[in-house]
Amino acid sequence: MGLDMTRAFNFSAGPAAIPTEVLERAQKELLNWNGYGCSVMELGHRTPDFQGILDKTEANLRKLLKIPDTYKVLFMHGGASHQFSMVPMNFLAPEETANYLEMDHWSRMCIKEAQRFGNIHLQQGIRTNSEGLMELVPENEWQLDEKGKYLHFTSNETIVGVQFQEDPHTFSGKLVSDMCSDILSRPIDIEKYALIYAGAQKNIGPSGMTVVIVREDLFESFHTERVPSLFQYPYVSEKGSMPNTPPSFGIYFAGMVFEWLLENGGVEQMYKRNLEKAHLLYDYVDQSNFYHSPVAKGSRSFMNVAIQMKDRTHEERFLHEARENHLIALKGHKTFGGLRASIYNAMSLDGVKSLIRFMEQFERNVT
Amino acid sequence: MGLDMTRAFNFSAGPAAIPTEVLERAQKELLNWNGYGCSVMELGHRTPDFQGILDKTEANLRKLLKIPDTYKVLFMHGGASHQFSMVPMNFLAPEETANYLEMDHWSRMCIKEAQRFGNIHLQQGIRTNSEGLMELVPENEWQLDEKGKYLHFTSNETIVGVQFQEDPHTFSGKLVSDMCSDILSRPIDIEKYALIYAGAQKNIGPSGMTVVIVREDLFESFHTERVPSLFQYPYVSEKGSMPNTPPSFGIYFAGMVFEWLLENGGVEQMYKRNLEKAHLLYDYVDQSNFYHSPVAKGSRSFMNVAIQMKDRTHEERFLHEARENHLIALKGHKTFGGLRASIYNAMSLDGVKSLIRFMEQFERNVT
Ligand SMILES: Cc1ncc(COP(=O)(O)O)c(C=O)c1O
Ligand SMILES: Cc1ncc(COP(=O)(O)O)c(C=O)c1O
Ligand SMILES: [Mg+2]
Ligand SMILES: [Mg+2]
Ligand SMILES: [Mg+2]
Ligand SMILES: [Mg+2]
Repeated sequence: MGLDMTRAFNFSAGPAAIPTEVLERAQKELLNWNGYGCSVMELGHRTPDFQGILDKTEANLRKLLKIPDTYKVLFMHGGASHQFSMVPMNFLAPEETANYLEMDHWSRMCIKEAQRFGNIHLQQGIRTNSEGLMELVPENEWQLDEKGKYLHFTSNETIVGVQFQEDPHTFSGKLVSDMCSDILSRPIDIEKYALIYAGAQKNIGPSGMTVVIVREDLFESFHTERVPSLFQYPYVSEKGSMPNTPPSFGIYFAGMVFEWLLENGGVEQMYKRNLEKAHLLYDYVDQSNFYHSPVAKGSRSFMNVAIQMKDRTHEERFLHEARENHLIALKGHKTFGGLRASIYNAMSLDGVKSLIRFMEQFERNVT
Repeated sequence: MGLDMTRAFNFSAGPAAIPTEVLERAQKELLNWNGYGCSVMELGHRTPDFQGILDKTEANLRKLLKIPDTYKVLFMHGGASHQFSMVPMNFLAPEETANYLEMDHWSRMCIKEAQRFGNIHLQQGIRTNSEGLMELVPENEWQLDEKGKYLHFTSNETIVGVQFQEDPHTFSGKLVSDMCSDILSRPIDIEKYALIYAGAQKNIGPSGMTVVIVREDLFESFHTERVPSLFQYPYVSEKGSMPNTPPSFGIYFAGMVFEWLLENGGVEQMYKRNLEKAHLLYDYVDQSNFYHSPVAKGSRSFMNVAIQMKDRTHEERFLHEARENHLIALKGHKTFGGLRASIYNAMSLDGVKSLIRFMEQFERNVT
């Protein structure tokens, strides 16, 4: 079929697929937003027009995630990796300690950064079981520093496809979570958290923006003297997410994605559909002798499905033929290898069914 | 005419106008870039495809500004305000001093931030002359700390419309410049500088990205132990501007703007056209008894033209009627008031002529 398809099924882990309807709307208004004679990206951020976009975007996110008024919602520059340093810089005084669950790549990056700014108590969160499969370390085996200021965990490890199936509940202190790759894919009980952050490029919009949800009453305990203004949560909050020119086009996109979510049944409906997509794919992989999942049941991500073939020499051909079938970005992360299907909110059930059909056909062709 | 115009002449100071041709191209490829079946904003940043976009964008910027190989070009998250802290955090050890020229709003924000991270020696760079006009303090009146690690100055003060007419040349140390609002509007002798930075949202592309041009041999002298990784110039450089997911859609836009500049004669041609636009407007304002410039000749910006009317009660009507004539975003910054026409590269000579025609007509109507 070649490369002239219009919209492929895009399984990229991030930057990831955006709903086609959202892109179509953006396309329509790209040169002339709302009859103003310019694009949203050409609109001054101090205009009432842009403020309206920002306000509505925040209101819709609050509605989707049922965020209580006691929490601030911040739209910040940069990626989740910026939060890796911001969290300890704000929460920790020089000699204080925080707990970090060590999972895979992303939590390790996060820990390395936190270690610059405080004492980090590590707890292993992931391990290989007796069958060689990745699994979560059960919470009753954790040994945390109960006096630690917070417990940081990555709710979904994008690269290996391991996801917490429930919120941690034994730590008596504050919970902080990197929810990059599963925010808005499922309901969250916000009140269990001190702070949640997520880079935009999976379930929110284009990269270059990060959403932070933070309990406002914590602000007075933050340590910010030697912290750049734009890295101080209280300052960014006081300035209504606009201490400087915000990533305005990203905010506008997030706003459109949030409207799309509301129009499609909100997070509850997405969650149902996401579980359906994931079960379909895992069930197929499990029954197949050709493909398998490297992750144990009970630890599997419903957002990033890692898939391996017994014979790894097939990978290149798989990716090539998948692309010819309009199925793109199925290559696993370079540190983990194999295949990976990221099936965020924007991936339809049809997309997953097409992938399974292709996998069946590929197996038949090579065996 | 109402609000149903297609493209207005947009005089916004930032986020500012993007060339219409660039937006049209982006519109065309928004759902399907290069036949890949997805948007650039849905493309993994570790793909060869995105790397190609980034490489070409950098190469074209190097060509436009004749950037020597001894300089690194970084595309960074966030705005110029992030650089306000990054510069001192990287350049200064705890007790070291730097010189800052105090101009108007932006340099003051920059100084406030720098003071967190080092000793700041201030030199006034702007003043009101005997006729009540803003002017640059001549360089021979400056008193700098010659042992200061660098001299920071804002080449063009966007809000008041005051611009350096030549590079500072008496300081024997390193020059660092905030060129947010005049980068790419004129040739720059890069080798005079240790570091140049500019937020994208004037002459480069959408907000949320900042370009940094920095002398590589300085890296080894930087102090980065307690600096977040993403704020360390050497680290961002080592990672080829991708220590984490970059603002990929912004980089893609910058790339298209750079191509547009090259197709339109490059920075040399832009400079000629920018001077022509500015002279036309200032000449008109000077000869008029109704409008005047608050900036002395010899200090005037050719990017941001501040304009005042004797009777300030006309401002609201001016802005309203201008919009009806497809001339938008002419309101001065809230801290300075009056009118302001930002005439960056994307503003055509036609746009400036239309503005002048409207100003003439407005004067006739109200007097
Ligand atoms: C779970 C998780 N955390 C952090 C990151 C880093 O995000 P960013 O590249 O926006 O800094 C990612 C990126 O994919 C991720 O998946
Ligand atoms: C000269 C100058 N410096 C700095 C800034 C701040 O840039 P940002 O909003 O991207 O942080 C601006 C913004 O308009 C500016 O004009
Ligand atoms: Mg990624
Ligand atoms: Mg199997
Ligand atoms: Mg501005
Ligand atoms: Mg006059």
